This record gives sequence, structure tokens and C-alpha cells, in this order.
Amino acid sequence: MSDRTSVNLVCPIPLQQYPHVLMAHGGGGKLMHQLVQMFLTAFGTADTIQHDAVTLELTGNKIAFTTDSYVVNPLFFPGGDIGSLAVNGTVNDLAMAGARPLYLSVSFILEEGLSMEILWQVVQSMQQAAEKSGVQIVTGDTKVVDRGKGDGIFINTTGVGIIEHARAIAPQSVQPGDLILLNGDLARHGIAIMAVREGLEFETTIESDSTPLAEVVLDLLAADIEIHCLRDLTRGGLASVLNEITTAAKVGIEIDESLIPVREDVQGACEILGFDPLYVANEGRFVAFIPQQDRDKLALKDTPSDNGKGVSLRASLDPTCPYRGCASQRALEIMRSHFPHNAVVIGKVIEDKNSLVTLKSKIGSKRIIDMLSGEQLPRIC
Amino acid sequence: MSDRTSVNLVCPIPLQQYPHVLMAHGGGGKLMHQLVQMFLTAFGTADTIQHDAVTLELTGNKIAFTTDSYVVNPLFFPGGDIGSLAVNGTVNDLAMAGARPLYLSVSFILEEGLSMEILWQVVQSMQQAAEKSGVQIVTGDTKVVDRGKGDGIFINTTGVGIIEHARAIAPQSVQPGDLILLNGDLARHGIAIMAVREGLEFETTIESDSTPLAEVVLDLLAADIEIHCLRDLTRGGLASVLNEITTAAKVGIEIDESLIPVREDVQGACEILGFDPLYVANEGRFVAFIPQQDRDKLALKDTPSDNGKGVSLRASLDPTCPYRGCASQRALEIMRSHFPHNAVVIGKVIEDKNSLVTLKSKIGSKRIIDMLSGEQLPRIC
Repeated sequence: MSDRTSVNLVCPIPLQQYPHVLMAHGGGGKLMHQLVQMFLTAFGTADTIQHDAVTLELTGNKIAFTTDSYVVNPLFFPGGDIGSLAVNGTVNDLAMAGARPLYLSVSFILEEGLSMEILWQVVQSMQQAAEKSGVQIVTGDTKVVDRGKGDGIFINTTGVGIIEHARAIAPQSVQPGDLILLNGDLARHGIAIMAVREGLEFETTIESDSTPLAEVVLDLLAADIEIHCLRDLTRGGLASVLNEITTAAKVGIEIDESLIPVREDVQGACEILGFDPLYVANEGRFVAFIPQQDRDKLALKDTPSDNGKGVSLRASLDPTCPYRGCASQRALEIMRSHFPHNAVVIGKVIEDKNSLVTLKSKIGSKRIIDMLSGEQLPRIC
Repeated sequence: MSDRTSVNLVCPIPLQQYPHVLMAHGGGGKLMHQLVQMFLTAFGTADTIQHDAVTLELTGNKIAFTTDSYVVNPLFFPGGDIGSLAVNGTVNDLAMAGARPLYLSVSFILEEGLSMEILWQVVQSMQQAAEKSGVQIVTGDTKVVDRGKGDGIFINTTGVGIIEHARAIAPQSVQPGDLILLNGDLARHGIAIMAVREGLEFETTIESDSTPLAEVVLDLLAADIEIHCLRDLTRGGLASVLNEITTAAKVGIEIDESLIPVREDVQGACEILGFDPLYVANEGRFVAFIPQQDRDKLALKDTPSDNGKGVSLRASLDPTCPYRGCASQRALEIMRSHFPHNAVVIGKVIEDKNSLVTLKSKIGSKRIIDMLSGEQLPRIC
């Protein structure tokens, strides 16, 4: 892939002749091969993608393996599109297992009549996202379904990563006393999608937080931080993830509303739309469960507390923060080197047979944060 | 998985309360967790499927990796359903790379309103197919799309297998002089689907040939057969696969129509529907490219030439077959131990700069078998 760059690629399909995807593009004949050429041009995997399966050499024998299908509507939204989302989402799932993401497969389900130009844009976006994360798209598949039996583009990406350490990074490893570190402000992805879908306009454009998380995780691992668990806050948001973890680890969690960063415009949009930001999906946010450090040894250095975008930053930088000085300074420094303004401690793990997640509100009251029955926002990923 | 069997499983979702899939089943909340419980019950992967990615230990460092999405319509057909097809298809792609299939991911895109009972049937069928092939379904994902934006069930399966040998089994390894071995009669899968879709009835039910191919391939490898290439004959059928191989290997291919087994009822259905069986999709048929053996050393033993189902078996068992005695007897014996009646030699690879595939017809004339533009049958896999 080293000789190739995704900028200035020329689409090998003549768009004037084939402005739309036809049923025949999924049929195994010449048109499908032309479509495959489009993917090969973008993904640069000519040697491998043409066989039934690709052969990969790995440097270790412990791998991480994950799959996700992406059905986000609309296909394009501020801060991303279905293509970059499909790459980042699967890269992030590998990262959350403590793995170095290496390879992705990509499988498209296209609706007859889809604009070929849009497909080409999505494919290029995938390649750019793959390059950014250092993963290779190595094998693929395309199906075409009749008009009205799909919705433009559905994408499945499945990822393989290599695990280069002996840690057990998993919900079951979470223990009472662990602190919960969060890498940034919540709820932007879901609100960005919803704003486009509902035609809402705000003073500032709310952009999705979609971003790859592999680099920050690999840096945490390289620094030998004792990580018990990592989770990205996608469908169901922070609240659902914390509930999944308390159930799996048979512990309780206490978080502090005043420590959880939410941008003011996002908070406002949530109030207009009737959503709770704790349950809204993110695509570039994760929590890390890390044992509490000795308060005396690790004094936390202060860093600027506002990113200039109207984001109020309370959290562990605030002198009144109860976790100030308790967290691994090195872990927070690494997280802030990737996410400068909002990497914070939001709470801790406690003993609790009932596996409850409790939120201490800004006015000091406590409430239980339960799993929702369904979800606030359908088709946000 | 050893303590579990897929028979007599009880669906953990109360079907009377939730007879249909709701948008909320894809939303990250309680209902989605209930749906995940259904998959865990069938696939028996409770320890692994709940985290973002599964961790797998491999015994080697050369893996095969492949992906396919399945959009077959109808979901159930004689000889199979979308679930078994989604397992067999991906298992077969791994086998065609000469790999031992080990692990599958499965990702569902469900249409709102889908019958939960049908989903449960499909999930059980997947598990049975996985057990039959010796693969484990280890990680998964579910998305739900609005009514009219999908078509019941779409399934992506992505597979990881291990390559335990040093052979380069690939189209590029095909050489002039290679014989082309086929494991059975053609065109049943596509015709079985088409018959259901068009409401056609024949004297005998035409069943799909959908079946896993890993075992026969592993036996060929274990017997140290010199295999140059393996390909399963899915979308586009035998004709498309042979064209892909001549293009990749820069060779020509000659096949003999009289040697290619097609069941009489399937041939009749093809004539009624206006299809050429050479282009119709199969889901349990493959070709193996194996160097020609010394005619004197390897006399082919005769085996019964009719399977009693109206299948006329000419092929290499026929004393007039031009390839009689040329093929690796051991390879054919192994193929016949899995596919008793129709494992045959159908032609050979020749030198040809134009990469043509030529068919010698039953009356002795020759015609070029080209790639079709689209496909005869949409959504057969």
C-alpha cells in the first residue's frame, strides 16, 4: 500500500455511462468485476481481494476479531459519513479489546439505483479512514438488492487485530476501586445525526465525534498502564455501557454528573429533542477502567480547562474534583495528548451486589441510571 | 461448546410477547440484550460475544480471512435457508484458500416487523451448519432497519481459518497441463431458489446443493495432493469462475460439455427458464486444479456411474473419456468419498495468451464461454 495514496484517485467506472448501481452490479459478471475494480482502486488490494479469501501473516498467535454492520441514516453527516464510521467503529472495537488493529474486511449491501458517485465518495472515505488508523482493507464482497429492499448503502466491516500483551482487558476484570476515565465530551455523534435527520439548525454545527481510538489505546498499553477494561460508548451511550460492565463484573459504579463533559450546544440540543446525553451514542468516546493510584505519589498537573468551543470543563482538573490526584497521572496525560481538553475521571467502581450505576447529580441528589428498554435514536451507526 | 447441542434449544425471547422484531431490538437497550441472549443460546458463546471483540488463540501465524453478505430471497428454500447458506458459503471460501475454517463472526441486518420465530429458525440453522463444519460463531452484531428499508434478514458472515501448509493455492498458481476436477452436478442451487421464487413445480423437488466443502479440501491437503487452485462455483457459476482463473493465470481452459454433470430435471428447468447451467450459481460445488499425472502409473478404478436420481454420469469414468487415467486417482477417490457420484474431470488448462475458456459441445463443436455482463439470477446468495 506504500506507493499509493487515496488522494486524487480516478474512479474506474465511467459515471456517465453507469450513474446508478444496477442489480447486475451484484451478479458475478462483467459489471460486478467493474465494481470490484472500483474497490481495488480505492483500497489498493489488487493481489488479494480477487480470491475467495485473503491469506494474512501474523506476528503473534493471539488475535482480536470483531464485526459490525453500519446502517446509519443519513449516509453523510457533519463530521463523517457511513464509510469513515464503518472503518472507525470496527477499528475502535479492536482497540477496546487491547488489540492493534491490522486488517478489515468490507462487505456492501447496495440498493439498486444508488448513485455510483455517492458510492465512490463512501469508498474513498473508507480508504482515508483506514490510512488514518493504519489498517488495511484486505478482502470484500458486494451484494445488490432490489429498489425498496435496502436503503442506499449498508456496510459490514469485520476486523482482525493482534494482541501484543498478556493483560486481560475485559468487563470481568473491573474491580471495586477502579477509576473511570473518559476521553471527551459526550453525545455529539447521535445529536449530529439527529440534527441532519430532523433538519434542525443550531448556532454552531454539531459535528460527530467519530474518530479512531487505536492510537491512544496503544499508547496506554505501551506505557504499561494497568488497564482493567476499555469500552467505547456507541449504541446506548455511556449509561448502557456502564450497566453492561456492572452486570458483567458484579460491581457497582458511581459517576458524578458535574464531571461528565457535555458541550453546551449539545446539551441544548438534547433538551430540545428530549434526549439524555448519557444515553446518546458516541463514535469516538471510550471509558478506561484503571486502578486508583496512591494520592500522595501522583499529583495531577493542571492543564487548560476550556477548549474555546464553549465546552465547560469541570472534571478532575477542578480543585474541587473528588478524584483529583487519585488517577494515574500518566494515563490522563496520554489520553490528553490525543484528546487535549476533555480527558477526565468521571467516577469509580464500588462494591455492589445489585450491579447498580448511580449518578450524583449537579445538585447533589443521587439517581439510578438504568438500561433503557429500546433506544432513543435508531440507525445512528 | 462441547456441553451444548443445538437440538431442543428453547428460545429465550417470549415469542407471544415479542412476535416481531422492533426497531428497539437494535437499539443498545434491554430489548437488544434480550436478542443477544437469543444468539448466545444458539451459538453458545456467552463468554466472548459480550465484549467489543473476541480474543482468539491460533496455533499458527498464517490465517485466511474472508467475508460475504447473504441477501438470498426467499429466506427458506429446498435444501437450505439463509442461515445455513451464510455459514456454508463463508466456510467454503476459507476452504478454497486451503484453510481450516475455525471462527465466524455473524452480523444481522433485520427489517422491522420480521417474525421473531423465523429469526429463531435461521439462528438455529446457522448453529447446526456451524457444528457440521466444525466452526465456532464467536462474535456478532445486530442492526434493525425500518420497515421497507430492508428485506427480512440480511446476514454477513466473516471467517477466519488457519493455513497449515506451505502451498500457494491461488488462481495465479494454475498452469497449462492442470486438469480441472469438479465435485458434482451443476446448477441446483440457483434453480432451487428460482423454482420457489417463480412458483414452479417439477416432478421431483430440486434441492439446493448447499453444503460445506472444508472436509473434502482438508482431506485432499492431508493426502498431499498437489493442488494449484480451488474455487467454489457461486455467483456466475462455473463459466464465470473459469474466466476469472484464465484471466488471473494468463492461461486458457478447455472443458468438455459431455463431461459436466447436470441432473436431467435441472437441465429441463434451465431450458424452461432460459438459463445456461454453466452460469447458474452453486453453493456446494468447486473445481480443483491439479497437475496431470502419468497415464501409465495411475489407472482409474471404475465406480458406479449413476446415483439413481436420474443423473447421467459420463465424465472420467466413461471408457471414452479423454481424461480417463490421466488424473490423480487419489484426488478423485477422496472427492468421491465425499461426493460419491459426480466427482469428475471436466477439462484441462492450456496455453493461451487470450485467456479464453472454450467448451467442446456434445456434438463436437467448440464455442467460447465468456463472462456474462450481469447475472441470470439476482439474490441467490
